[in-house]
Amino acid sequence: MEAAVIDLLGVLAYGELIAYERLTTDAQLAPSLADKVALGTMANAEFHHFQLLSKHLADRGVDPLEAMGPFVEPLDSFHDSTQPSDWYEGLIKAYVGDGMATDFYREVATYVQDAETRTLIEGVLADTGQASFAVAKVKAIIAEEPSVGGRLALWARRLVGEALIQAQYVAVERDALLELLVGANNLAGITGLLKSITDQHTARMARLGLEA
Amino acid sequence: MEAAVIDLLGVLAYGELIAYERLTTDAQLAPSLADKVALGTMANAEFHHFQLLSKHLADRGVDPLEAMGPFVEPLDSFHDSTQPSDWYEGLIKAYVGDGMATDFYREVATYVQDAETRTLIEGVLADTGQASFAVAKVKAIIAEEPSVGGRLALWARRLVGEALIQAQYVAVERDALLELLVGANNLAGITGLLKSITDQHTARMARLGLEA
Repeated sequence: MEAAVIDLLGVLAYGELIAYERLTTDAQLAPSLADKVALGTMANAEFHHFQLLSKHLADRGVDPLEAMGPFVEPLDSFHDSTQPSDWYEGLIKAYVGDGMATDFYREVATYVQDAETRTLIEGVLADTGQASFAVAKVKAIIAEEPSVGGRLALWARRLVGEALIQAQYVAVERDALLELLVGANNLAGITGLLKSITDQHTARMARLGLEA
Repeated sequence: MEAAVIDLLGVLAYGELIAYERLTTDAQLAPSLADKVALGTMANAEFHHFQLLSKHLADRGVDPLEAMGPFVEPLDSFHDSTQPSDWYEGLIKAYVGDGMATDFYREVATYVQDAETRTLIEGVLADTGQASFAVAKVKAIIAEEPSVGGRLALWARRLVGEALIQAQYVAVERDALLELLVGANNLAGITGLLKSITDQHTARMARLGLEA
């Protein structure tokens, strides 16, 4: 398996593992038992994705723990620097953070040669229901308390900033992963990728009735 | 469905949900990525058990959230008053706490008339692997640092005390559940049940090389 694909599966696997862990932690802020169960169900779908990615690596003779290793620090840093202070910040983080990550990975996946690996990646990127759940809950609270909207819009901007910092760190450290992207695109392609991710982020915020 | 059986499935379901949540939280104390993955796998098995119990209730026209309701406070109180301060305390809690709860539920399940419900309960009480995982890790640290043994033995004693406090609270509040037990046993039977649970706890601690 190519180094770039191992890197891609490694960062995806650790991303799913930590998403499961943080969603579960955030579920402790849930205002009702029904909300806790809903978030738990999504968290467990993420864990299942992590298991699929681990198995895919292991079946091809790659140690999943080693593949994930290089991404523990940047992903933990992202999560540590963006700890939600309440239930709604947690929902925005699940919606905006996972949304951006998914857009990025989905784009990168198109450059992966092996069809089986590509199918796996598309499968684990499938929405676990958190987008519509988060949109419904966040729109309801903004309708009730319009001032919350401004605070959550600022929070989303901070999430994007922190994500970009960590993405740059990963790009500098992991040559193979960067080459997969740069090799497939020229510089104009990279700019196009960034624009597409930004546009999708703006559309996502608009669905909440907020400016990006 | 009888009130006592709804209570039993409700307390079991919330117990599994909260066990999943706390195991995941404790996994953040894991000394290695491999340990974090191991604990996450067990936590997800607990969540799956929660889903089976919820479905069983819902299929019989009982709202799982309502069935769990009465047990949220006592189970949350138990967990809040026994927050592990390190990885090993978390392992002991998973091993000793879940072990005692399992012994108790398994005993109560024998008084449930409906065979399908009994089979379900036996299924969700199946060990998710945490016992042997915890025993191996705890024995290794005690061999390395014998003084840790005394601290963990005290911690286990505190867990048992807190569990008994909450069990008494539940027994007083939930008449139907208590009657299921008392109806099936005379007083001598109840004493026998308590002795059996205590004996199994002592055996469990002995497997760690610790006194109960």
